[in-house]
Amino acid sequence: MKKVCLVIGAGAGIGGTVGRKFAREGYHAALCRRSDEEGLNRMVAQIEAEGGSASGHLLNAVREGAIEELVAQVEKTGPIDVVLFNLGAQIGGRSLEDTSLKTFELGWQMACFGLFRLAKVLVPLMVQRGGGTFLVTSATAAVRGNAGQHSHAAAMGGRRMLCQTLNAEYAQKGIHVAHILIDGAVDAPDTLGKMLGPELYEKLRNTRGGEHDGLLLPEKMAETYYHLARQHRSAWTHELDLRAYSDLAWWNHAP
Amino acid sequence: MKKVCLVIGAGAGIGGTVGRKFAREGYHAALCRRSDEEGLNRMVAQIEAEGGSASGHLLNAVREGAIEELVAQVEKTGPIDVVLFNLGAQIGGRSLEDTSLKTFELGWQMACFGLFRLAKVLVPLMVQRGGGTFLVTSATAAVRGNAGQHSHAAAMGGRRMLCQTLNAEYAQKGIHVAHILIDGAVDAPDTLGKMLGPELYEKLRNTRGGEHDGLLLPEKMAETYYHLARQHRSAWTHELDLRAYSDLAWWNHAP
Amino acid sequence: MKKVCLVIGAGAGIGGTVGRKFAREGYHAALCRRSDEEGLNRMVAQIEAEGGSASGHLLNAVREGAIEELVAQVEKTGPIDVVLFNLGAQIGGRSLEDTSLKTFELGWQMACFGLFRLAKVLVPLMVQRGGGTFLVTSATAAVRGNAGQHSHAAAMGGRRMLCQTLNAEYAQKGIHVAHILIDGAVDAPDTLGKMLGPELYEKLRNTRGGEHDGLLLPEKMAETYYHLARQHRSAWTHELDLRAYSDLAWWNHAP
Amino acid sequence: MKKVCLVIGAGAGIGGTVGRKFAREGYHAALCRRSDEEGLNRMVAQIEAEGGSASGHLLNAVREGAIEELVAQVEKTGPIDVVLFNLGAQIGGRSLEDTSLKTFELGWQMACFGLFRLAKVLVPLMVQRGGGTFLVTSATAAVRGNAGQHSHAAAMGGRRMLCQTLNAEYAQKGIHVAHILIDGAVDAPDTLGKMLGPELYEKLRNTRGGEHDGLLLPEKMAETYYHLARQHRSAWTHELDLRAYSDLAWWNHAP
Repeated sequence: MKKVCLVIGAGAGIGGTVGRKFAREGYHAALCRRSDEEGLNRMVAQIEAEGGSASGHLLNAVREGAIEELVAQVEKTGPIDVVLFNLGAQIGGRSLEDTSLKTFELGWQMACFGLFRLAKVLVPLMVQRGGGTFLVTSATAAVRGNAGQHSHAAAMGGRRMLCQTLNAEYAQKGIHVAHILIDGAVDAPDTLGKMLGPELYEKLRNTRGGEHDGLLLPEKMAETYYHLARQHRSAWTHELDLRAYSDLAWWNHAP
Repeated sequence: MKKVCLVIGAGAGIGGTVGRKFAREGYHAALCRRSDEEGLNRMVAQIEAEGGSASGHLLNAVREGAIEELVAQVEKTGPIDVVLFNLGAQIGGRSLEDTSLKTFELGWQMACFGLFRLAKVLVPLMVQRGGGTFLVTSATAAVRGNAGQHSHAAAMGGRRMLCQTLNAEYAQKGIHVAHILIDGAVDAPDTLGKMLGPELYEKLRNTRGGEHDGLLLPEKMAETYYHLARQHRSAWTHELDLRAYSDLAWWNHAP
Repeated sequence: MKKVCLVIGAGAGIGGTVGRKFAREGYHAALCRRSDEEGLNRMVAQIEAEGGSASGHLLNAVREGAIEELVAQVEKTGPIDVVLFNLGAQIGGRSLEDTSLKTFELGWQMACFGLFRLAKVLVPLMVQRGGGTFLVTSATAAVRGNAGQHSHAAAMGGRRMLCQTLNAEYAQKGIHVAHILIDGAVDAPDTLGKMLGPELYEKLRNTRGGEHDGLLLPEKMAETYYHLARQHRSAWTHELDLRAYSDLAWWNHAP
Repeated sequence: MKKVCLVIGAGAGIGGTVGRKFAREGYHAALCRRSDEEGLNRMVAQIEAEGGSASGHLLNAVREGAIEELVAQVEKTGPIDVVLFNLGAQIGGRSLEDTSLKTFELGWQMACFGLFRLAKVLVPLMVQRGGGTFLVTSATAAVRGNAGQHSHAAAMGGRRMLCQTLNAEYAQKGIHVAHILIDGAVDAPDTLGKMLGPELYEKLRNTRGGEHDGLLLPEKMAETYYHLARQHRSAWTHELDLRAYSDLAWWNHAP
């Protein structure tokens, strides 16, 4: 029975690519996303075509009980050794007036409460087995709040503190929590692509992506995600940042 | 018609004392708390006995519409010029296992969502009037997550980022948002007192409180809250910390 | 014998203005600057014309023994109760290539080593007397390093940590160390004015200064400096930021 | 001609171990330390016995011209592609009174000025060649100042800001600067061992080291150092922390 890498938020960017990396390294990749079953199936098929093992799961993370059921179901496949929590709550710039109570709450439910629910159900299993890894994708909104980011920043700021409390309570029991601060635009068709629309996205890719490396390339990011999961317990990283060489760090530049 | 200082979370510690300070300086203090109507009435009476103006309001901040109605009601008394958001979500150390989904959500509703709801309804009024001040009491849990603080830290971390997004969007329109990081135990009978129980609280006061100043004294803290509200707009503070001289800063010591 | 407020770096901006504020509040202001004896004398005369007490001292802070001699000399006037360390090391944007070893060292000697030397000689006197206040003007370069700021950021980053170590060691002995992060342009003829040249400075003042409050006004900043020195020891601030309402915080904007 | 990994501060802990790791991966390891030529020769011999390439260099980093000469000399062996700046300035807890001006200056010369001098001479060579990597070992003293750490914290705080200014100016030109925050005790005989003395060190190793992993093991840390140097330029890390799973993070605990 293979060890499982569970990916919550497995789109065509970071999530799917990290899942595929772990599958290549011998894990079963359990890939979850909210919609686009077809795309999900393609990702599973692609991994299997490479000789890897994967499964696809549709997940509405904010539905009561959904994360809990998912973990129970995936654990039947094998023990979840690594989980990538990759749900975002970026909805683009939105003024206070244009951010409804519902939107604000939804951001928190996805980006913060979702991680808490996951931890509640998965941490005890990992502790029982002597260890496990939580890889949590994060954003600069976790450390600075810009105008128009009320929902996103409040959710991510809470998430970052939650990563710290989990780490403080469970590192000694073998749970490695890593908070990965993505500080730049990721070359991902279904997040950046959607936000910009096909034309702008293509333009941006041509200007900054590809060989110019101006965008964060998920395949390269996956190397660091995998490295974190492989770190020996005598030398764990809790927080690191990732950005393209050509981008300024968040503390050096405006959004 | 007097300018109003609205205090959300007006217990016998920071909230009530800051309200009284603003009343002494000529504001009408609108004091809100969840329960203990008698205590609330005493606080109002005490302010009035000093020649000040005050009103008491019971508020269940997590009830839908409650904050919105409160603001509408208080605005009839006079324009809210300063608001102190003083709701906490500290529930003492509680392991992941002992922190229910309900508890985690409640912490967020009080400490983070409550501020967002307040901002949604109050910021537009302040902008229309050309300015106003948000004083937000915060805690070290907003910047570091300790074991057993899952609910508290996630809520306060989100709140801190929300203060930043509000400041980024509205400072230029005259809204001064100040995030006040209380880094130590406050000499307050109905928070610290409740948490410790009467005997331990009395013992702590005798050891560290009073003339030894080992606890943060609300009357002295109120001076800084008031100073923040008085800062000229050419020199505003967004974040500061407060602790007793005899306490180590959070970055120097364990909880 | 009046209590003394010693100002190290008393130009026509923050330093001189804070000195004057303390003089108005009953302190003897001992004003030190490197050059421009005439300007220094004018500042002293102005304070005396207002009925205050002041003295002027030329100080080459990097000369061996200079700070030590100054403290000894000023202590003859009265006990130094408050010191404002206001020496900067901003030399404008300078690439790595254009930053000589000498420049880098000089920045450190002024902004970091100078404070250490001051603390070495003054802290023991204050401890003996039961207390005292260190007000340290700082800059965003203490918390983020931008391109072209090698000398300035390295000096200020060291200084910030030094403020923390002094606070950790001496707060309990009554020494209040406050690190004041000035996050914006100050309306000061002899720093900003010099950096920009007279024409650009006048233009900036017309656009952002004066009634538009787009620059930090030293007179208004001085209120907060004074407040810090007056904080009761049960509620001390170690770090705060100051910026004009119309400016974005450093974490929200590029330099 | 092999690419060179230059290690400044190559003791038996992090420095030597990282050098050896890079040698195993095909680099020539140029190992520098202040003294113990015999130990240095043993390290070189050990690498060569494994089939690697290495050279040993005695370096008094604070001597004028020493770092500059070293770089010139090593560049004759091959192009320096990676440099590990591993000089520390930890001198143990020392009160303000017991920290002499000389000590304070020396700490800065080693930990901060040394990096600046290295950057001055090496960055232009790297830029000319299209890239290179600066790995900078750091400590929690770079982000918090504890009592008794005046010299160490001021030096490391400056160094951290310098890493940021270098990154801001040169990442776009292919220079990867990584600031590696070592947040715990390293199992290293010639730093920790010296600080504690042989008996206490052995005791600590028996309690926390070895299979208990309570100390940071240099061999495991070296994996992450190497990973940083291998990161693709589309996904670079500027800052990360490293600690043993059994240790609390600095923000959760006292020193």
